[in-house]
Amino acid sequence: MSRPNLHVALIHHPVVSKNGEIIASAVTNLDLHDIARTAKTYGVNSFYVVTPLEDQAELVDKIVAHWVTGPGGDYNPSRREALLLIRQKASYAEVLEDIRQQENVEPITVATSAKAKPPLLSFGNFKGLLDKGAPTVLALGTAWGLAETFMEASDYVLEPVTGGTDYNHLPVRSAAAIILDRVLGSR
Amino acid sequence: MSRPNLHVALIHHPVVSKNGEIIASAVTNLDLHDIARTAKTYGVNSFYVVTPLEDQAELVDKIVAHWVTGPGGDYNPSRREALLLIRQKASYAEVLEDIRQQENVEPITVATSAKAKPPLLSFGNFKGLLDKGAPTVLALGTAWGLAETFMEASDYVLEPVTGGTDYNHLPVRSAAAIILDRVLGSR
Repeated sequence: MSRPNLHVALIHHPVVSKNGEIIASAVTNLDLHDIARTAKTYGVNSFYVVTPLEDQAELVDKIVAHWVTGPGGDYNPSRREALLLIRQKASYAEVLEDIRQQENVEPITVATSAKAKPPLLSFGNFKGLLDKGAPTVLALGTAWGLAETFMEASDYVLEPVTGGTDYNHLPVRSAAAIILDRVLGSR
Repeated sequence: MSRPNLHVALIHHPVVSKNGEIIASAVTNLDLHDIARTAKTYGVNSFYVVTPLEDQAELVDKIVAHWVTGPGGDYNPSRREALLLIRQKASYAEVLEDIRQQENVEPITVATSAKAKPPLLSFGNFKGLLDKGAPTVLALGTAWGLAETFMEASDYVLEPVTGGTDYNHLPVRSAAAIILDRVLGSR
């Protein structure tokens, strides 16, 4: 068993709207904070925030700068530590390229969906995969979820998180926490 | 094994500030949305939002009304379903009284903390407790966590969520998701 080598990517394009159209969603401040803090808690390597929109990319940079080099980091050093994980990229291809550069291998790609169709990667098998230590990216969708084409281009689609009810509308922040706990949490 | 009968309470007083003083914290809109959606996913009975501050209580009522009886519910019916779980109360005593009225028994109280000292309730024992079906309240602290006196007055303090690192600064929204998944998720 090796140390898991997991990266998380929060995707703002291509995702689907409420009406099923492919859109680029807006960046949500609290997604950055919450997922960075959870990622830091579970020893995730980096947290990529992916948006092709220039103004949204600037927003990401502004938030990160405030907490990493600006006054936020003095006020709350643990927030600084978490937001240091964030890397802003214009596309998922750039994320994969960045990991390839660091690791000299192609990362394994795992997409997520609240209503994915089989074949799906089980949480147990995902954990097993991570225990082998290969660089892996977990892609999380914003808005109404990752586009179908994005899922098709991924190596695996993870089985949805379910809570024993037929309600499946978890916020991406909460889904991220549950997924990381299931695959990286020690229990 | 009975059906778990769990209530969640988000506490805004008495909690501690960054400097360790007892304060009443402000209500965060996204705490309400995220925890309500997670609670709905895991079949939690009700989600109490506890604040003694009148303007904050009004804010809770306004948010809930927007999504339950107002335009939000038409726009996003699944959000409506989740926010229907919210009950606003001025104190934890009122929460316990409300559950007592519904159930005719005293609820079991479980407090949470990121840095609790033993004796602690393990996740396994908490799950076992819930499987017996007795009404139970899980109290989550905002700001820098529940006051010491609040924890002392609870029947149990749950072991902290840890992620295999020494970083323990999870947002309350994410901690709620992980805890509910650990004790109510089927795996």
